Parts: sequence; structure tokens; C-alpha cells
Amino acid sequence: MGLDYRVRCCPDGLVTDRRRRIKVLDATIRDGGICNNWLFEEALVQKTFQALSQSGVDYMEIGYLTSEGLFDPDKVGPWRFCRDEDLRRVVAPGRMKISALIDCGKLRPDELPQADDSLIDVVRIATYAKDLDEALRLNDQAKENGFETFMNVMAVSTLEPEEVDAFLKRLAVSSVDNVAIVDSFGALYPYHVRYLVHKYMNYLGESIGVGVHLHNNQQQAFANSITAIDEGVDFVDATIHGMGRGAGNCPLELLLFYLDNPRYDVRPVLELVDDFASMRDSLRWGYHLPYAITGFFNIHPKSGIDRMATPERYACRPMYEKLSHRLDQAAKAG
Amino acid sequence: MGLDYRVRCCPDGLVTDRRRRIKVLDATIRDGGICNNWLFEEALVQKTFQALSQSGVDYMEIGYLTSEGLFDPDKVGPWRFCRDEDLRRVVAPGRMKISALIDCGKLRPDELPQADDSLIDVVRIATYAKDLDEALRLNDQAKENGFETFMNVMAVSTLEPEEVDAFLKRLAVSSVDNVAIVDSFGALYPYHVRYLVHKYMNYLGESIGVGVHLHNNQQQAFANSITAIDEGVDFVDATIHGMGRGAGNCPLELLLFYLDNPRYDVRPVLELVDDFASMRDSLRWGYHLPYAITGFFNIHPKSGIDRMATPERYACRPMYEKLSHRLDQAAKAG
Repeated sequence: MGLDYRVRCCPDGLVTDRRRRIKVLDATIRDGGICNNWLFEEALVQKTFQALSQSGVDYMEIGYLTSEGLFDPDKVGPWRFCRDEDLRRVVAPGRMKISALIDCGKLRPDELPQADDSLIDVVRIATYAKDLDEALRLNDQAKENGFETFMNVMAVSTLEPEEVDAFLKRLAVSSVDNVAIVDSFGALYPYHVRYLVHKYMNYLGESIGVGVHLHNNQQQAFANSITAIDEGVDFVDATIHGMGRGAGNCPLELLLFYLDNPRYDVRPVLELVDDFASMRDSLRWGYHLPYAITGFFNIHPKSGIDRMATPERYACRPMYEKLSHRLDQAAKAG
Repeated sequence: MGLDYRVRCCPDGLVTDRRRRIKVLDATIRDGGICNNWLFEEALVQKTFQALSQSGVDYMEIGYLTSEGLFDPDKVGPWRFCRDEDLRRVVAPGRMKISALIDCGKLRPDELPQADDSLIDVVRIATYAKDLDEALRLNDQAKENGFETFMNVMAVSTLEPEEVDAFLKRLAVSSVDNVAIVDSFGALYPYHVRYLVHKYMNYLGESIGVGVHLHNNQQQAFANSITAIDEGVDFVDATIHGMGRGAGNCPLELLLFYLDNPRYDVRPVLELVDDFASMRDSLRWGYHLPYAITGFFNIHPKSGIDRMATPERYACRPMYEKLSHRLDQAAKAG
């Protein structure tokens, strides 16, 4: 693939080196599964594994590790639990690493498998800053069991700068391998991401990788990924066709177009678009105003998701005014 | 509206001054009309005019000036012509300026109205670089007739840097008031926009405004607008809900959220979202892979638009491979 027919009017910029060293984590089944309770056809999960392997994606986050009993197994797909017998039907060990997420509090450290017995390579821990003690216990146990670990401290946009400093200081002296800047609410603009990338990298030093997990409420997930790459992060999360809760995530296909790196082959991913795009109308991820409004107001997307399930979904002025009033009152109150 | 509940974790950045001085041009009826041949209900155009006026938007581009006879008036709405008798039913003179676009070659200079007799304030001229002679004749006549003028040199992403230099040199010594960087194919990334903004501003000096007209094929229209604002442009184009040909444009509502400027009130725009969003499924603008692929390959969106009208719309790998092969051959050939 040559660049001769691409954009001609500008030099190719100074970002090429950074684009070359980035790693890509696909979270389609894990994060996209929030839209459909992980009830994917097994053949599609197999096809996704194959396509991602062929595309050269570095990590596939295939689901969650969750304590038995926390969800009714008749109502959620197997990727909410990632039992080894389910993984074995889909995953063949290879170059691509398999990641599973733990919602902090939904798995005890003593329930973690041993890496040697598992098809999982990477344990990611999603936590709020306030639950960092428990998250670090999970991290330490996961490291002891032989896993590579990632820490996702969620909803960073709701924290004060001092709170961000505080959790970064603790992570800097932990055994965690990678930390993601997590824009749970899709509230961040590129200048926020630029600031946070510098802060995370400064605190976490050379030995801990920094990445981004971004949501697309304001059509910024891919743009914020580009900003993060330009500022020097080590990895970026994406999902096929942007599938994910609410507005969804950075679309993997756009990210691979942008990276334009011979290490990646976008074509197997394009082959999956048909399967995933056909779910979009019923599952309603993508650009919809209710999600944009929760992103703008820096709140959880739940009210947007609830509204999208009603026929009044696009009656956006009342939604905006109600939130604006409520949040103004809250701001005045304290 | 206070900022207290917005993103907390970062300082508000250094871009505020630039966000404060920007002007906003809404092109919903003009550019969105390409999707439906300008066959909007007249009540919706009236409502749009009212809402944009109330929102504080600086310019409303309501349609095209076109020679009579170039389109069958039974097949296109009145906004393809912008006759004064049609404008009068919608437009009331006020603070918001009314703009009409001329596709260079589709109106003769001697057909331009006099500004004093017209509800139009601004004439925009859309041209390819190769037709700049004719575009400048139109510009000179429009200035003589009393209009403010804008020049949109289209598809800049397909030009060599020297070709961009050449048209900017000519525009710099013309009487044009404003020049837009036009990403007709949705091919530009933020680093391209940054480079072009600097180039346009350097060539055009203090007295000619610079703006952007961006398409959203790769979910970059809003992000590229942010980049352009940060780099200091004078105006940004947007459309309600991003309505526009193919992937569409920068969504006006997201732009007004971002500017967060008391001069603008996003609420009247939010009231229109219901009307425009309801057209989106049938007119198919927004993020769809065929548009992303034409954007990536830096070609006209036509093949993507044609494909979106077929049931095979998301069979994206063959589309990608065919274009990749064809363009590789073309690049080799010369």
C-alpha cells in the first residue's frame, strides 16, 4: 500500500515515529458486549478472534473475569465470565495477547486463575479512584499469578487534579505494567487529553506504559486517540465499528487507517464490519444527541442510554435544560 | 451556565481566547440539501432560520445562487436557486448574515444580484483551483455589487503543496474577504489541518479571514474544527446534526458545546435535532464505512454514496481492495 494517492497538500508530519511504536487493544467483545449482555453468536466471537489475529492487533480484550453468581448466566453471555472452557472454544494461543477485565469488586483476588493454566495473558482492572486499595490487591495477585496487568482508573474527568496526582503516585510505585487514561463519560476534548497524557507519563515514568480508553459521545474518541498518539502514549483501545456502551468507542478501522503501519492489516477488520454494523441500529451505539449531552455535562451515559430507548429520544432541549438546571444547583450547593 | 460540573481534572487550557473570537457559519440547508435535493418543508427552513438567529450563529448559508435552467425546478427545492421571492418567505433581516454559495461555472457574474436589493449578505464561491480565474471574476463582481465574499477552494487534499501556494498567492492580492480550507473528501487529519491553517494564514495576512469547511468521513470534522480553532482561524462551518453529503459535516451542536461562549445559545439548535435526526436514517449521512474508505483514500465520496444505496453497503473489504488496487496502479502509472 503506497501513500502516493493519499493527502498531497502537506508533509506527512512529525508523528510518524509515534504512530509506528503504538500498540492496539481491541475491546469489541468486552466493551461492545455491554450493549447486548455479551450475547454474541459464538461463531462471531471466533470470527472476531481470527480477524483480529490476522490484522496484527496486539491485544484482544475478550470479556470480564467475574465471580460466579454475580450475574444470571441465562441472561448474559459467557464473555461476562471468561471461564477457560469457553475461551478454549475461541482462542488459540498466538502472537495476539488475550485480555480480560475485572470490575473492581466483582472478583476476589483469590479467584484469579494462574497465568500458566489460562488462555488469558493480561488482566485489566477497572476501578474508581476511591477503590484503588482493592484494585491494587487485585493487581498484586494478578502479577503474582503471572499475568501482565493494566489499570483503568475510570471517570478521570470527574476528579480534581489533586486526586489524579494521588492515584498516579500510588500506581507509580506499584507493580502494574500499564495504565489507561479512561474517559468513561466521553467528556474530554483533545486539550484535556494532551494535558493528561503528559501528567500520566510524568508520574508513571519509563517502566509503566500509558494508554487511552476513550468514549465517543462528542465524536472525539478517535480524535482524542490521535492526540494521545501524537503526545507519545504506548497503547490505544478501540472496537470494531466503534461498538460500545452509549456512543461507543474509537473505531478500530479508523485507527488502523490512521496508523497506516505495515504491522497492521485493516482488511480482516473490514470484513467484520458487515456483522457489527448490522447490530448498530438495534443496539443504538454511535453519534446520538442524548449521549453527546451526557458527555458535554460530564455525567454517566445512563440517562442518555435510557432516553435512547424511548420515542422521545431526540427531544434534546428539555433534556439539556433539565440537566443544566440540576447541575447548576448542585454546583451552587457545593 | 457555569463550568463547575464540567471536566475537573485539567486546567481549561490556553485556547479560550481563540474560542471566544471565532465565528460560526451554519450550512445545514445548503450542504444538507445535497442529501435531499433541497426539498425541505418550507416550515422547517423557517424554523431553522429562527433557531439559528436565536442561537447567535453568525452566518446562515441557506442555499445556492444558480442560473435558471440548470436544474429542473420540479426536482430540486428553491434553495438551489435562492430567488429573492423565496428568501423573503423565510428570512427577516437581522444580526445573522445570510450566505449563498455559487458553484463556480453555475452562475455568470452578470447574473449576480445587487446586495442592496437582496436578502443575501454574503456570496461564497466554491471552486476548484484550476477554475480560479472564473472564481475571481465572480468574486470581483460580487464585491462590486456590495456583497461580503468567501472563497472555498475545494478538495485541497488532492493538490500539491505548490498548487496550494499558487492559489493562495492569487487570493492574497484579491478583494476576497474570507477563504475556507475545504476538506471535500474528509481526508484530512488534525496534523494536516494544523499545517494548512498556518499556511493559509501566512499567505493571506491580516485582512483576509481564514476558516474551515470539513467533512466527517473519518469522524474528524469536529476534531479538525477544534484543531483549526486552536490554531487561530476566524470561522468554522457546521450543520445541524452534521447533516451533509456522505458522512456530513461538523455537527453545529457539538461545536457550540465546545465553544461554550455566552454569545451562542445551543438550546434553539437542540430543539431542531428531532426534525433533522428523523431524516438521517433515510438520507444516510453520518459515520458509515463506505464514506470512511473514500475519505481514507482521498477520493470523492460518490462511490461511497452509491454503495450506501445498495444492500451490499457494508461489504467493505472488496471496496477497500478494489480502490487500493486501482489507486496503486494509478500511482505507479504516474
